[in-house]
Amino acid sequence: MTIDYHTLRNWPFKNVEQTYTARDAMLYSLAVGYGANPVDSDDLAFVYEKALRVPPTLAVVLGFPGFWARDPRAGIDWVRLLHGEQSLVMHKPLPAAATVIGRSRITRVVDKGAGKGALLEIQRSITDKASGELYATVTQLTFCRGDGGFSANNGLSDEAPAPPPPMPERAPDHHCDLPTRPETALIYRLCGDDNALHADPHVARAAGFERPILHGLATWGVAAHAVLKTLCASDPQRLAAFHARFTAPVYPGETIRTEMWRDGNEVSFRARVLERDVLVLNHGRAQLR
Amino acid sequence: MTIDYHTLRNWPFKNVEQTYTARDAMLYSLAVGYGANPVDSDDLAFVYEKALRVPPTLAVVLGFPGFWARDPRAGIDWVRLLHGEQSLVMHKPLPAAATVIGRSRITRVVDKGAGKGALLEIQRSITDKASGELYATVTQLTFCRGDGGFSANNGLSDEAPAPPPPMPERAPDHHCDLPTRPETALIYRLCGDDNALHADPHVARAAGFERPILHGLATWGVAAHAVLKTLCASDPQRLAAFHARFTAPVYPGETIRTEMWRDGNEVSFRARVLERDVLVLNHGRAQLR
Repeated sequence: MTIDYHTLRNWPFKNVEQTYTARDAMLYSLAVGYGANPVDSDDLAFVYEKALRVPPTLAVVLGFPGFWARDPRAGIDWVRLLHGEQSLVMHKPLPAAATVIGRSRITRVVDKGAGKGALLEIQRSITDKASGELYATVTQLTFCRGDGGFSANNGLSDEAPAPPPPMPERAPDHHCDLPTRPETALIYRLCGDDNALHADPHVARAAGFERPILHGLATWGVAAHAVLKTLCASDPQRLAAFHARFTAPVYPGETIRTEMWRDGNEVSFRARVLERDVLVLNHGRAQLR
Repeated sequence: MTIDYHTLRNWPFKNVEQTYTARDAMLYSLAVGYGANPVDSDDLAFVYEKALRVPPTLAVVLGFPGFWARDPRAGIDWVRLLHGEQSLVMHKPLPAAATVIGRSRITRVVDKGAGKGALLEIQRSITDKASGELYATVTQLTFCRGDGGFSANNGLSDEAPAPPPPMPERAPDHHCDLPTRPETALIYRLCGDDNALHADPHVARAAGFERPILHGLATWGVAAHAVLKTLCASDPQRLAAFHARFTAPVYPGETIRTEMWRDGNEVSFRARVLERDVLVLNHGRAQLR
């Protein structure tokens, strides 16, 4: 089984239509830690339908094309996939409810070398079905550990994405601690990513974890919540872009500390789990407006 | 404004059709405390779609006729309503997903006397839309504090329901402590009861509470979870009936201790909040099978 450059660059994703309601948006907000302080009106605004605010990061669960990489025609050793990085660019704030179209394509297929793996960059646009307006561009970098060396066939491989700029060397300017609950992964699953790894202890152990882990994108959503709360007065419109690299999983129930450095409208951030002092997100960059 | 016996006994409730999915059932389970111990397989069975178990108490959020009592034709001083007691009789276990019909009627209108209030007993059957089979009978006792003395018109009033049997005098045979989260009411709201009292601090203060309170039916669902876990090996089929009287509200985030006395298949129970040592449910009766 080997991957083919052209097959992947031309992967025939179907457009995914999805309708979300205020209830779906509030459930997502609860899954990324809103509502834990219900007397904080900024916090409440994301989980109460009166003047509802929608986290920009809701976009990452919209219009998702499903587990296409398991299709044998992709030739991917999908068991060895790792979600490497995730970025979001917001073009227009998400309303409290909408019908959207997700259009996915593979924008890079990079050979890191035999025994080293391959990188896939998958980009998805989220547009409003009725108006056609673009809400968000979601980009995922997936590391295919078992698929290095594919370019030996025909020499075809894309440039690797630029390495992230270094993190600031000074102490963080701000930090924000947000709790997760033992049941947070079970709530996040109801937002659309129902991979059994995040619920089933047997599946988690088979994958090498002591118990089910939190979705990487839930951790990522909690960090965006922290940036929005700390530096944007919880105004969703002020988050223009958000990117981070996954470095380790969070176990549901742990506390996520997001550390931030602000330089004008550029924010560098990383996140760690307080209970184990493990870095879970690194090389984070947010752009404010 | 006064209530009329015949008008209420013949209140023209519309049948309410509702489709619930496994996602809805899991969300309800999360709202009544399942999933907080995700390595406990009995706990997990209610929040993971593989071999999903459904809490019998899900029936109380199905086929709900809405806030009909606010209709001016009912003549009820609805601001002074209190939810007094709630009971559930299970005829057939709820499946993981179904389309059901809720049919409500008012089965008692009791005059407690001028200045004392009136009691309404409202009964709802939950049947399967396709087969017509009866899943559950849900009975709610509502205390209308502002509507006593209505029978002076024409002498019409029903018998009050029989007073509950006394609670056992011995120490409880069992107890079970289940946590709620600060955000539990916000999750429970997504199951259908979106009364602002449970989310909005202003509404809560206007109603005399220091902050939003948990839904009485969420407390009641947590107590049923405790009985099911402690005395039924978490098998939903074993709970035949469940009844309790509401005595005080729970604030989200508090721990609910359910104390149980078992006499054969009859269980007496009550529930208190550990943090304030306040009784929140009393005169509870469950019937096991």
